[in-house]
Amino acid sequence: MSENEQALGITESKEHSPGDWYSEVVRKAGLASYGPESMGGFIVTRPRGYALWEKVQENLDGWYKDTGVDNAYFPMFIPESYLEKEGEFVEGFDPEVAWVTEGGNEELEERLAVRPTSESIITPYMSQWTRSHRDLPLRLNQWCSVVRWEATETKPFFRTKEFLWQEGHTAHESSEEAWEETVTRLDQYERLYDEVLAIPVLRGRKPEHDKFPGGDTTTTVEALMPDGKALQGATSHHLGQSFAEAYDLTYADEDEEEKVAHTTSWGLSWRSLGGLIMTHSDDQGLVLPPTVAPEQVVIVPIWQEETKEDVLQYSTEVAAELEAAGVRVHLDDRDERNPGFKFNEWELKGVPVRIEIGPNEVEDGELTFAHRPDGEQFVEQRDELVGAAEDHLDAVFDKLYEAAEDHLEENIREADSPEKILGTIGKHGGFVKAPWCGDEACETVIKEKIAAEIVMVPFDQEHDPDADECALCGDPAVETAYFAKSY
Amino acid sequence: MSENEQALGITESKEHSPGDWYSEVVRKAGLASYGPESMGGFIVTRPRGYALWEKVQENLDGWYKDTGVDNAYFPMFIPESYLEKEGEFVEGFDPEVAWVTEGGNEELEERLAVRPTSESIITPYMSQWTRSHRDLPLRLNQWCSVVRWEATETKPFFRTKEFLWQEGHTAHESSEEAWEETVTRLDQYERLYDEVLAIPVLRGRKPEHDKFPGGDTTTTVEALMPDGKALQGATSHHLGQSFAEAYDLTYADEDEEEKVAHTTSWGLSWRSLGGLIMTHSDDQGLVLPPTVAPEQVVIVPIWQEETKEDVLQYSTEVAAELEAAGVRVHLDDRDERNPGFKFNEWELKGVPVRIEIGPNEVEDGELTFAHRPDGEQFVEQRDELVGAAEDHLDAVFDKLYEAAEDHLEENIREADSPEKILGTIGKHGGFVKAPWCGDEACETVIKEKIAAEIVMVPFDQEHDPDADECALCGDPAVETAYFAKSY
Repeated sequence: MSENEQALGITESKEHSPGDWYSEVVRKAGLASYGPESMGGFIVTRPRGYALWEKVQENLDGWYKDTGVDNAYFPMFIPESYLEKEGEFVEGFDPEVAWVTEGGNEELEERLAVRPTSESIITPYMSQWTRSHRDLPLRLNQWCSVVRWEATETKPFFRTKEFLWQEGHTAHESSEEAWEETVTRLDQYERLYDEVLAIPVLRGRKPEHDKFPGGDTTTTVEALMPDGKALQGATSHHLGQSFAEAYDLTYADEDEEEKVAHTTSWGLSWRSLGGLIMTHSDDQGLVLPPTVAPEQVVIVPIWQEETKEDVLQYSTEVAAELEAAGVRVHLDDRDERNPGFKFNEWELKGVPVRIEIGPNEVEDGELTFAHRPDGEQFVEQRDELVGAAEDHLDAVFDKLYEAAEDHLEENIREADSPEKILGTIGKHGGFVKAPWCGDEACETVIKEKIAAEIVMVPFDQEHDPDADECALCGDPAVETAYFAKSY
Repeated sequence: MSENEQALGITESKEHSPGDWYSEVVRKAGLASYGPESMGGFIVTRPRGYALWEKVQENLDGWYKDTGVDNAYFPMFIPESYLEKEGEFVEGFDPEVAWVTEGGNEELEERLAVRPTSESIITPYMSQWTRSHRDLPLRLNQWCSVVRWEATETKPFFRTKEFLWQEGHTAHESSEEAWEETVTRLDQYERLYDEVLAIPVLRGRKPEHDKFPGGDTTTTVEALMPDGKALQGATSHHLGQSFAEAYDLTYADEDEEEKVAHTTSWGLSWRSLGGLIMTHSDDQGLVLPPTVAPEQVVIVPIWQEETKEDVLQYSTEVAAELEAAGVRVHLDDRDERNPGFKFNEWELKGVPVRIEIGPNEVEDGELTFAHRPDGEQFVEQRDELVGAAEDHLDAVFDKLYEAAEDHLEENIREADSPEKILGTIGKHGGFVKAPWCGDEACETVIKEKIAAEIVMVPFDQEHDPDADECALCGDPAVETAYFAKSY
């Protein structure tokens, strides 16, 4: 009996103990295991978890390549002297760095950081490769793992000391082009959440005091988790010229004048999988949208001894037809398990659509479809198999997206005083919009009391500083702040 | 002017200074740059280099998935206590380990090895996930980077302290199944070299004294580089039960008896790219088989002012038709460069087929094709474009493969005494076959004099110990040893 078989079924409640429930789903659906005991904060990503990451990669990587990005690979170590060249940056990341100090049985002359992010090694190479405006824009991306030695509690995919991600790094002639790039990547992140992960997001920028260390502007997509906490889904940074200056990334413009380039960086990590798992899953286990599910359809044949042959033959033909149509289908014809066990197991593992085939279906030329998210059942004609399967997969996607969208829309509230901000987040969680003067001190008032913060400021300002007042201090409001507790 | 444009053209000779020539090709074709000064042994893989690795990945990953392998991802660090559990293994790798000793501004309680290979962290997890014979075979693979702190000189892709690879790890019920798995993966490596990299290889096993530390049998594919040195192309290890025993990887068989599993591991690294570059390239620069070339065809239009419009329109249509047919094509319509410059640049970058289009081609409805490896030219009819392009791409692949095959076949020689082994390798390089008693001491005789070693022993024994004598010591010969200098 494998780990899965020994203890099938989720015992924790999503509503009442969301933390325990989440880690139970991750473990029992076979997505990840915790790392070695002496390596708190690390996880092992099992095939079913890694397959989800591959779907994220497939989509994003294709979009990147279609929009002028080339993949590359930079060393996983960064010399300390490189890290130190951009002052705000090293201050921001230094406390979280893991250091290699010995190699080949000798102490190293210079400590090497295991990359926490790669601006400080990629920018100097971009500098080597850039001479003229003809070399720009330069757009690079790498799929890799990074390490950030955070002390907070591990949550698989959400918060781990090592995580998989992609980091894009680009250089441009002008600030406008760099901004356009920043937004292009943010658009692609939003698209990934919308079209692949079935999670609607809000877009905007981080407040000045919470942007990427050393950068100009950090843009973000923010999702809302079922427990009312916000999830930073991915960030895209307009870095301005500070990294280009620190690492001497210049180019000769059309008049042969030397100019400093403008850079961006943008990243999405496997935290997106954490959001995916937490958003859609339930007390029966994992729920996945068909876009990322390793198996989109599972066929469970139901037979008695005398009907076995007919049922299995019919089921095999159905499976073959779906596979030929490009549907990821699995026929569960195990002898040693009964249909009820199979139903539970595939529900736990998050297969979006189940087709049940018993003697009645065979006799009537029918198929019984069931939707994973809500168990809804439909009888379909055998000769309409492929169209029906595609419709049901779309329907499951829509159900998941709409549920998440309703939840998001119902949980954006307004407030115009510190008490109301605190009270609303305390009672409902979710996002609370408030007019804000832009001063970090006004966030601190909230942060100290309930660990909520300004997670996002929308791009379009809704406030008129001549008319509106900061909900915190009463000074003129210059922007709309979205407060929330966050992961 | 970019790095490439500043110093176009290879200045070193492949024949006379192969080492300098190789690194010049790697650098000027835009494949890789050397790492930071304080990080000798590391390289930066640029987009054109990484694109080659992506082609290797695409092919192998597809074959793995078709043959029951799942991708997963394990932590990049391994606790020292894990590493130490298999005695021969740790002895083999310990001298090459890079150690993380500090994280988050604190000294770690236990040193963490940056993975040099992952048997010692993957096997214990396979153990957790395996209870019954029904959980076997278990086949995992990961694409990742590993670090081996070797002191020898860096050669991009051939020998770097960090390298990209895939490592497969499997567990089976019986030794026979594990052996079958070992050979399946070796077959796939051979296929990659044959069908994708256009490099014929020899297959066999490593001698006992050179097998994977802790394993039972190491199988290998060996290629022959143009300078007469062998390249170990990839290895597939039958690990027997030693790792399963060390990490407690057991299962209940059909009779509920507890048994120790049999494991394998197998890996191919970006060293394969080193072999690719070195095998086919020449004094004009990189040469690539069409299977891996980022651009398979480059179109260079040749115009005067009065013919420009017609030539460019014709060229654009040709490019569009090839692209629609799935050919990776690039139209070089830059105004600021003349055709001669473009010819040289694309030759340097290794594009397999060039199509030249001037006013004559337009007028006659023709196309001039040129093959990168030998410059051979052909005139083809415009209306046979796609078929002609495909034929020429195939022809270039065949030329490259056949040249490598001729070189390999011409450089396998026989010898029956130490003097002849030494003399033959000294004069010709290449492989020297000799009957061998199986004793490492007989290899040492050769190794000490000319740094050649036994790189491979064929699976099929050609010697009869009752009749044949070891070429080194005169004892009965039990196998055929292939001696060679190697990378």
